Formats: sequence, C-alpha cells, structure tokens
Amino acid sequence: MAAGSAAQVWSVDPRTGKRREQVAVEATAEDVDSAVRAAHAAREALADRTARAAYLRTAADLLDAAKDRLVEVADAETALGPARLTGELARTCFQLRAFADIVDEGSFLDVIIDHPDDTATPPIPDLRRYKVPLGVVAVYSASNFPFAFSVPGGDTASALAAGCPVVVKAHPDHPATSELAAAILRQAAARHGIPQAVVGLVHGFEAGVVLVKHPLIAAAGFTGSVRGGRALFDAAAARPVPIPFHGELGSLNPVVITEAAAAERAEQIGTGLAGSMTLGVGQFCVKPGLVLAPAGPAGDQLVTSLAGAVGDTAGGVLLDHRMRDNFVAGVAERAALPDVDAPVTPGEDDEHTVRPGFLTVPAARLAAEGEHDLLLEECFGPVTVVARYADDDEVSAVLSRLPGNLTATVHLSSDEAEGKGDAAAILAQLTPLAGRVLVNGWPTGVAVAPAQHHGGPYPATTSTSTSVGGTAIERWLRPVTYQSAPEALLPPELRDENPLGLPRRVDGRLEH
Amino acid sequence: MAAGSAAQVWSVDPRTGKRREQVAVEATAEDVDSAVRAAHAAREALADRTARAAYLRTAADLLDAAKDRLVEVADAETALGPARLTGELARTCFQLRAFADIVDEGSFLDVIIDHPDDTATPPIPDLRRYKVPLGVVAVYSASNFPFAFSVPGGDTASALAAGCPVVVKAHPDHPATSELAAAILRQAAARHGIPQAVVGLVHGFEAGVVLVKHPLIAAAGFTGSVRGGRALFDAAAARPVPIPFHGELGSLNPVVITEAAAAERAEQIGTGLAGSMTLGVGQFCVKPGLVLAPAGPAGDQLVTSLAGAVGDTAGGVLLDHRMRDNFVAGVAERAALPDVDAPVTPGEDDEHTVRPGFLTVPAARLAAEGEHDLLLEECFGPVTVVARYADDDEVSAVLSRLPGNLTATVHLSSDEAEGKGDAAAILAQLTPLAGRVLVNGWPTGVAVAPAQHHGGPYPATTSTSTSVGGTAIERWLRPVTYQSAPEALLPPELRDENPLGLPRRVDGRLEH
Repeated sequence: MAAGSAAQVWSVDPRTGKRREQVAVEATAEDVDSAVRAAHAAREALADRTARAAYLRTAADLLDAAKDRLVEVADAETALGPARLTGELARTCFQLRAFADIVDEGSFLDVIIDHPDDTATPPIPDLRRYKVPLGVVAVYSASNFPFAFSVPGGDTASALAAGCPVVVKAHPDHPATSELAAAILRQAAARHGIPQAVVGLVHGFEAGVVLVKHPLIAAAGFTGSVRGGRALFDAAAARPVPIPFHGELGSLNPVVITEAAAAERAEQIGTGLAGSMTLGVGQFCVKPGLVLAPAGPAGDQLVTSLAGAVGDTAGGVLLDHRMRDNFVAGVAERAALPDVDAPVTPGEDDEHTVRPGFLTVPAARLAAEGEHDLLLEECFGPVTVVARYADDDEVSAVLSRLPGNLTATVHLSSDEAEGKGDAAAILAQLTPLAGRVLVNGWPTGVAVAPAQHHGGPYPATTSTSTSVGGTAIERWLRPVTYQSAPEALLPPELRDENPLGLPRRVDGRLEH
Repeated sequence: MAAGSAAQVWSVDPRTGKRREQVAVEATAEDVDSAVRAAHAAREALADRTARAAYLRTAADLLDAAKDRLVEVADAETALGPARLTGELARTCFQLRAFADIVDEGSFLDVIIDHPDDTATPPIPDLRRYKVPLGVVAVYSASNFPFAFSVPGGDTASALAAGCPVVVKAHPDHPATSELAAAILRQAAARHGIPQAVVGLVHGFEAGVVLVKHPLIAAAGFTGSVRGGRALFDAAAARPVPIPFHGELGSLNPVVITEAAAAERAEQIGTGLAGSMTLGVGQFCVKPGLVLAPAGPAGDQLVTSLAGAVGDTAGGVLLDHRMRDNFVAGVAERAALPDVDAPVTPGEDDEHTVRPGFLTVPAARLAAEGEHDLLLEECFGPVTVVARYADDDEVSAVLSRLPGNLTATVHLSSDEAEGKGDAAAILAQLTPLAGRVLVNGWPTGVAVAPAQHHGGPYPATTSTSTSVGGTAIERWLRPVTYQSAPEALLPPELRDENPLGLPRRVDGRLEH
C-alpha cells in the first residue's frame, strides 16, 4: 500500500489463494464517523413498528430474489459450497421474517402497567414501562456464516427489529458478499422510505476498533475469536460511556457418551459424531470439540466407527489460508502431546485443502492442569478430541475444568433417557457449562426459534444473551418508565385502551 | 492501626462525629474467599422456589419484628431519623414480600417451549428454555438507604429471589445496622434449613475490591458514586472471566418547568421542588439536581416560592463528615462561578450540620462546554441548581448536554397535559435521557412495583437494568435451553403438562 493511500480490500478465492477483485478500501476514522452519524440520523425512520416489520420482510424477499448471485459470490469467497450457502441464505431470510413477526406481535416491548395503589409501601403512582431502542448498533460479522452471522444475519435482523440502525464491520473473508448484501438491505429500506444509511458497512481492522469507540454507538454484537472479541469487549468497557457488548467468542462444545449409550449404539454415535465434527469442514462455532467416551470395548467400537466415517470424509478448503495454517499447526501441536493418538490424522491435504481427523487421549490427562490443557482450547476446523474415561469421576473431573460453552451434549442409552441411572445428574452437571444442553443429538444446527439460546458462560458469550432466536432482540433495548404521564402524552403502547393490542402485564396480571 | 492487625470497623455517630462502638474488623482476602466459598456451597439450598419464597417472607417478618432495634441502630449511625427509617424498613419488608410473590408466580423464569417443526428453515427440534441463577452475587450497599439499598435491600432481595446467594460489602456509614440485618437474614435462612452462609457480609474497601475479582462471584450489584462504581465496574470487566456489573452510579435528575406550567402554578411548583430537593437532607439519588425554569415573571415567582420554602427548611446532618465536607466545598465552588446567584445559600450550618439552599444561573451558561459544566455534575446533599431559560432552544441545548439520568421530569400546564402545545416533544426529548420520565411530579419516592424502572443511561446505571421493581430479578439469571431432552429428565418447569402452572410461551403462544 502506498503511503497515504487507503488500504485496498480484496475478495480472495480460498480454493486458490488468489485475489478475485478489489471490493473496497478500508474505512478511515472519518468514514466510520460518517457511517455512524448517518445511521444515527436515520433512527427515527425505524420508530414505526409496522414500517420496520414490512422492511424486514422486503429485505428477506430481495435477498431471496438475489439468491443465485449471492450464493455464487459467497461461494467464490468462502468455498462453503452452493448447497450449504443456499441453505444458509434460506435460514437468513427465515430469520428476517421471524423477527418481522416478533415486531408485529409486540411481546418484546415488555409492557408493564401499574395503576396507582395507595395501599403499597411506599404508595405506587401510575407507572407504565416498555422498552425503547438503544441506538446505533455495531455488528462485527463472522467469517464462517457469510449470510446468517454476517451483514444480513441475526445481529442485524434483531437490531433492526428492535428499532436500531446498524453499522456492520465486514469480515475480510467475504467483502464482496458483504457489499452485495448491504446493498440489498439498503434497497429494501428505500422501498419503505427508510434512509439507506440505516445499514452502514465498513471494512478494515482499524475501522472496527474506531467503530466500537464511537460515542454514538450504543451497543455491539460480535461473533468471532476469543482474542479479537475480548479486545473489542475491553474497548467497549473502557469507553467513557461503556456500552453493552454481546460477543460470541468461542466454544469447545463438550459431548459426554455414557457407558450404556456406547454399549447400545457405538456405531451410530461414531458416525453421527463424524458427521457433526466435519460438517462445513469443521468450521461451526458449535462443532463438538471434546468428546468424553468410555474406555473399554464399547468405546473402542465407537472410536472405530468414528475412524471409519471420518476416514471416508473428503477434505476441504477452509475459509482462508490463515485459518488453514492455524489448523495445520494446531492439530500438529496437539497430536505431539504425550499419550495423544491420531486414529485418523487431521492436517494438511494439499496446498489449499485440509483433511479431517481426530485425536484420542486418556481423560485422566485432562483432569488436572498441565500441557494437555491445549486440548481444552477450541481448534477451528475438522478435528475433535476423544477423551477416554475410566469412570464417572474422570468425567466429572474433566467437566469441572472446562470454560463456558455454547453447547454441552450427552448421549444416553434408552433406559437412561427414561430416567434410569445417573442421567439426571449428568444433565445437572452439564447445565452450568453451557447455554444449550442437548440429549442424544449433535450441537451443529442451530434452529431459529423462540426457545433457542445461542450463548453461554464466558468465553462462549460476553453477556447472558443469545445471538439466535427470538430473545436476541432483547440485546438492543432498554426499559423506560413513565410516571403519572397523562393519557394524551403516552405512547400508544402504554395507553389503557391498548389500541395496538399488545401483550402486557397490567396491575400484576398478564393480558394478551 | 497496629502493623499486622486487621483494621477496625467502627460505627460512628454523624451527629457528633464520635465513634459509637467497634463493630467488626475489615475482611482480609482470606475472609472474603471464605464468605464467597460458603455462599457458593449454599446455592443448592436456594434451588427450590417454594422454599426460597418462604425464606424471603420469613426474612421480612423477622425484620419487621426487630423494627425498633433496627431503627434505633440505623438512626444512631445515619442520623436519618426514626420516621424516615421506619418507612424505609417497611418498604424493605414490602420489597422482600413482593419478590416472594414474584418467585411464586414464576414469569421471571421466562419459560419458552418449542415443539419440533420440520417446516422451519432449518427445522426446529424440541427446544425448552428457562432461566437459571447465575451464582453468587456481590452486593455493594449504599450509604443513603441503610435498609432498602443495603444488606436486606433490593439487590439482596432480588438475588435471593433469583436463587443466588449473596456476599454483601457493607457500607462503612452503617456497619452496625449491616451486621444486625445480616444476622436477621441468616436467622430467617436457618428457619428454612438454608445454610446461613447464603448471606455473607464483609467490611472494608479492599475487601470490596477482592470480592468483585473472586472467581466464584458471578455478578455484582452496586449503588454509590461514579468514582467508586466505575472502579469496580472496570475491575469486573477486566476479570479473566468478566461478570455483569449492575451499578447505579449517579444522576442529576433534570426537571423542566414549562413557561405555561410556571404561569399556572409557580407557587406550588416552587414549594414542591423545595420539598423534593431537601427530602432526607438532599441525600437521594433521585434528588432533582438541575431545574430548567423560565426567565421572566412566572419563573421569578417560582424562584421566590422556592426560596421561601427552602429558607423555612431546617438544616440537617449528612450521613458522614466526609460527605458534609464535600457538600460544603461543592456548593461553595459552584456558587463562586460567574453569573451564579444563591437566593438561599446552601452550606455549613454548625460543626455537624448543613443548611439547604439553591443556586440560579442563566441557562445559556450551560448550553456550551465551559467552567459551568460543574453545575451539570451531581452534588450530594440539599442543593439544586435552577437554570433560567429564555426560550425552548436554550432548554434543548442544555438537555442535549446532559449525561444519563435515573429520572427526568417535566412540569406542564393543564392544557399541555391534555396534549396541547409542545408537551409531546418535550417528553420525547426527555426519554433518551433517563430510565423514568415523570410528568407533574417529583422524582424522589421510588415505588416498589412491577413497572418501576430505577436505572438509566450511563452513568445512572452501568447496564440497562433496574435495581428497583419486579424486573430487578432479571439481573441475576441466564437462559439455558434443553434440546431434545426426554420428559423424564426435564426440570418440572419445562414439562409439557406444566405441573407447576407457570406462565409460558408454547409454540409462539402465551399461556398463563
């Protein structure tokens, strides 16, 4: 880069490592300031709930209509393949429409009305509470979901649904897809008379740092690494006016296979695990990264089944060459630890691709602090660690050493699933570890649903919030209470006659 | 203090500045560790909702029963007077019982159940979400409410209601009251077979710093100064595992008096303001600290009325002599600014007491950055600043310069209250500034009610939460979702037949 000129932002093909096209230049501090100010100025246009629900639906329609182009560009930048990307785009549109429904339904406003009560201590005046948008939200998009956790993804959809404009910091692994999606979101806005600046887009690492410090940024959503996420979290907390930072930073996603489950269906669990850990070339934040399987013959059979299935799974291209290099180095470092075996060796395939594999280790090696702690750190890519345990105490010892996770899974036998044995105790042990606890399933596949929780104790998330599912909207709102405001001045959401037909709690009773 | 010996904690009489008795010694790091570990070990005893609701009610009953002793000790340490303290204790007991009702009702668990839906994109498996307690909560109690925002106050009540043990850092202004209240809370726990360690109590500034950094502390609640609160907030954010820090740090609580309101009832507004700003010797976090009143005759009449009422108000004893010195210095520094007048001069009365007063300043002086910005900082004690505005632009200019507040108030004429004139625009301007917006009332007096919101943009609060009212319980919970968990292993809260009769959302529909 020439001195004084802006850094170029290139779209790169991970299948070849070659530059495809120059998409943009990195945003300067002035560019970031302009984007945030324009987004802030556009916020009033999102105040009307009917208009913003319609906007979200139009955004979904226009993304759907541009499907072929979006998938083509995204595939060229990410190598995730048309099938996966088509599914991800459908999910993204479903998500935008789901948030439009949530905006219409109105429960998220959390309306609470208390009429005066002189018998309370102290007396209660007329109080009416609902939630208002926080302001402009900074969205840091993820590498591994160029649609669903990127420009048109869950953070953007939930922020717009809450009434907050967004400025998205594009992920460098798919800048062209980001520009295309942002243009479509802006086009949809224009169709509803909403200023296009309601969705800003900036490129560049430094721009991301400037963004989180901008005085008009009211909150941030992030999906990415522990290192990058923690740096931005720290910057958000160190602001003169700190802001909420909802970051999803990393997760090991432990899986416990009980002795009885392995005895019952070792083969099926082994192939299921192979499918989950290699899905999308192991590039999911909910990839099972640590599996506690019993020592002994049933566990051996599970490992054999896993080895067969993983051995049959083709290699693939990771999202970028830095990730590929990190994966190759990361698995080599792990495989070199004492007592670690690699029934199927993960690592370098050719210059651009990697092959999946897994490691095994005696669980006892993970039960106390030591060099094997590396195996308790997330390794992005198609690898998992199978820790073979001798007894329940070893399972407990390993679980007690884990940091927070997005998910924790247990595979139970049919009898255990009916409540026999220690299954309830295992579930109770997994619950403090994660935001989602699965039984007899695999953590990959995060449904967009009201009851979803995609978050978990740190470092899985930097807050108690979710980034997927209906309650993700809560991140971008704050309550405000009006005291003794006359009916004529109250927002319609808070008037006695409930002109908008909102679900609400009045004098302690739920109404809907 | 002798080298090596623990620092003594004394109860001091603010009416004389004399030590009353030695209450305790400051907690060492080991003491803090013991308290937190014991509280953590006691958490399972709070898991049963019926038991913890009963516990909260017993705590209220025992506090009620000890009223005379509690009020006597609190008055001796705080000089707040028996009438006020009796009322505050009643409020505290009401609050404990209100949280018991909230525990029984169960909405706070936020149960959401989605049955499988293969038509969704991606398909939705069986998902069941509710909220679980975060763990041990650190509570930093306030000086100015020895009951309601201290050991048995809102943070403790809401944390216990959520199922979280607490370790309270006692405020040095009322250590004897703190010990007494903690003993009663522990006695109540024992009556329900709950370990007494469910309520820990530590004294000392350093102990407070150690507390927020303890690995087993899962969240913190704080009420106090911007300086102290921000330091603890920063420590909470800098932990290896950051924790939610819900701090109430400070608030100016602006009040706007419209021209028409002043014309209609200058006298009444002046006396009302005098009552609110001098209540409890001006030691409320919601004391109106900045009043925008019109220039001209109606505003003059308001100031005259205020001067009469404040002049007739007796001086009083502040909570401690450091606060007294800060108040005396703070009002002197403010009064010395150019164009600032003191129709009733606040400041030193005798060696132990202060007298209330107020300052006036042309609003134009506050419309742009300068030395008068000092008037936009909270001054704890019986003083307020009346800024006289020439027109609406000056009001807007001053409001735009304010930091976040707990409350913002407007006084309107009868016509304006019916929607005539610009009243709606003023309300819209106040809403971004505060968590509670009042019309024709005074911010002092914070009702304990479902719709209450006692919080606001920073520095009023370091989060979007409330420390008073039903939703204060949300601070100490996190969601967890069970995926495909068999009925036999689900907590009863999440079972289809709803054995506990909880309000919940099932397949998108609210049920209660």
